[in-house]
Amino acid sequence: MKKTTIHDIAAELGVTFSTVARALNDHPAISAATKAAVLETARRLNYQQNKLASSLRSGRSNVIGIIVPSLDTSFFSSVVHGMERVLNENGYSVLLYQTGESQVQEQKGVNTFLQSRVDGVLASVSAEKDQTEFYASLRKRQVPLLFFDRAIQELAIPSVTINDFQGGFAATEHLIQQGYQNIVHIMSDLHLTIFKERLRGYVEALKQHGLPVREELIFKGRVSLELGQQTVQQLLETQTPFDAIFAAEDYTAMGALQTLQERGVPVPEKVGIIGFANEAFGAFVTPSLSTVDQQTVKMGEETARLFLQLSGQKNFYQETPERIVLDPILVPRKSSTRGVNQ
Amino acid sequence: MKKTTIHDIAAELGVTFSTVARALNDHPAISAATKAAVLETARRLNYQQNKLASSLRSGRSNVIGIIVPSLDTSFFSSVVHGMERVLNENGYSVLLYQTGESQVQEQKGVNTFLQSRVDGVLASVSAEKDQTEFYASLRKRQVPLLFFDRAIQELAIPSVTINDFQGGFAATEHLIQQGYQNIVHIMSDLHLTIFKERLRGYVEALKQHGLPVREELIFKGRVSLELGQQTVQQLLETQTPFDAIFAAEDYTAMGALQTLQERGVPVPEKVGIIGFANEAFGAFVTPSLSTVDQQTVKMGEETARLFLQLSGQKNFYQETPERIVLDPILVPRKSSTRGVNQ
Repeated sequence: MKKTTIHDIAAELGVTFSTVARALNDHPAISAATKAAVLETARRLNYQQNKLASSLRSGRSNVIGIIVPSLDTSFFSSVVHGMERVLNENGYSVLLYQTGESQVQEQKGVNTFLQSRVDGVLASVSAEKDQTEFYASLRKRQVPLLFFDRAIQELAIPSVTINDFQGGFAATEHLIQQGYQNIVHIMSDLHLTIFKERLRGYVEALKQHGLPVREELIFKGRVSLELGQQTVQQLLETQTPFDAIFAAEDYTAMGALQTLQERGVPVPEKVGIIGFANEAFGAFVTPSLSTVDQQTVKMGEETARLFLQLSGQKNFYQETPERIVLDPILVPRKSSTRGVNQ
Repeated sequence: MKKTTIHDIAAELGVTFSTVARALNDHPAISAATKAAVLETARRLNYQQNKLASSLRSGRSNVIGIIVPSLDTSFFSSVVHGMERVLNENGYSVLLYQTGESQVQEQKGVNTFLQSRVDGVLASVSAEKDQTEFYASLRKRQVPLLFFDRAIQELAIPSVTINDFQGGFAATEHLIQQGYQNIVHIMSDLHLTIFKERLRGYVEALKQHGLPVREELIFKGRVSLELGQQTVQQLLETQTPFDAIFAAEDYTAMGALQTLQERGVPVPEKVGIIGFANEAFGAFVTPSLSTVDQQTVKMGEETARLFLQLSGQKNFYQETPERIVLDPILVPRKSSTRGVNQ
């Protein structure tokens, strides 16, 4: 029996080849009614999308692998949605791998994607030191790799990141402008440039406003609700004077907010709080949580577009890798706003 | 040059083959120090885990594909973490595919996993009607498939779900016991048994407590923050009498809570609210959001364990597929608690 092709479906429906191809790839320009008709006809004619065969012919799988620390946070899930939208529109399927910040898992993820013969890997790294040869090896094999949000700067790999220095600076300056002076910073102990840059922004804002940088107000740990809670408990038990907290991540800021409320310390009147990442819950809580938005969907879309652009070139890897840096956006809410008179 | 094997690494370090194999698979029983030493030695000896070759020999890839509607909700990301923990411990890598509730994407996900030659697929479906042949075809090809949370009951496929009827009943009965009588229900318009069962629980609780079931208090749509907001706006504009809302999903409950607060309707005093799914934000908001917990991590672990158990049998597919049903847990918080005297 002759195998059904996209041309057969197009002829049956009286539409173009391109319409059928795009309908089968769920392209947004094709109406739901057309997609339903195409799928119905494809099924009736027993059409089989033989991806494996076409992938062996073209050497392409049309699958992109994305490596993320975790999809628990709206930060990463929102970035991934931006990527999926652009990649799906361009005929790619997207597979995800969570590392849980483990480099062993990260290496397994890269190997699993190689084994699945993906056409490219988009990765946000777990740590920038220690073992990173598995990323360098992708370049050696000419498998397209892009970093997003967390990049290994030493490797000549294209990347899309945000200006974390500017984000840390804006968050700290906002607290200073609201009249807070003894500002705690809670950051990650992972080897990641993003957290070092946010710290650098915090230090620079204090300096520019003539405030001292006090080492005893800088706390490091695995950023989480618990880290924020523990830090505030420690600050209160040691009676360390402080009137604001800039946490490098929203869940940590939320933990700090919870413990201050439990101990009867009014936020923002006595202590101001700002987080980082604009997690979805921040707008729901009372007081609403100030934060720094990282343009997540845009980061995802830009990463996907840069992949598509570089994949269209003769050599994916250029001598000087393209590095797109997005601007963060300060999102002041109630947890750090004392009003104009203070 | 002779290829480095696991035996070479074991000999070099003076440990057993099993220790090296488990260290390379990130097994939790192996210490971080040992893992680091194994990785260091593996790198130094230029060891290459040739997964593709071994997969071609054994016919196994040791990769499991998971299909979910979206990882934006803590419900699905938490279930997936439960699965990953059990599967990683047993030497499997896990790849994820998000469908965004689109059946076209869902079919692409199944095809992508087949193309990647996964050893099994764990899926939570986008809809139970229309096109589901792609799931039936996995069974025909003897590719192991399990459903979790959302299953297609017509297909003889093993599954792990929760008792949604009982969850809907418990949520509604809790509101009645708190003295609420005119209870709105907001549910999904997707073709999914989980929502139909929650509705059935709502109806049965009203009946058992002698309350009328009023069609005008049952609202359907794409569950989301916006659906909750719109439903409350509509209820207030049409001056429909109501004193409680049971939303079949937490974001929808949150949207309802926000709009009631904006309009100055006190929660829980005037209107009680309960959601479903125990999303992470529910404990943070004011008033804290009552909900129904679905034992997410346990659901993930049970699904992974059932996969491992069935994979160890001669035939993965039994005549009568195993169907594990977990009990939901009522989580009453402030949004629905008026105190014992009311």
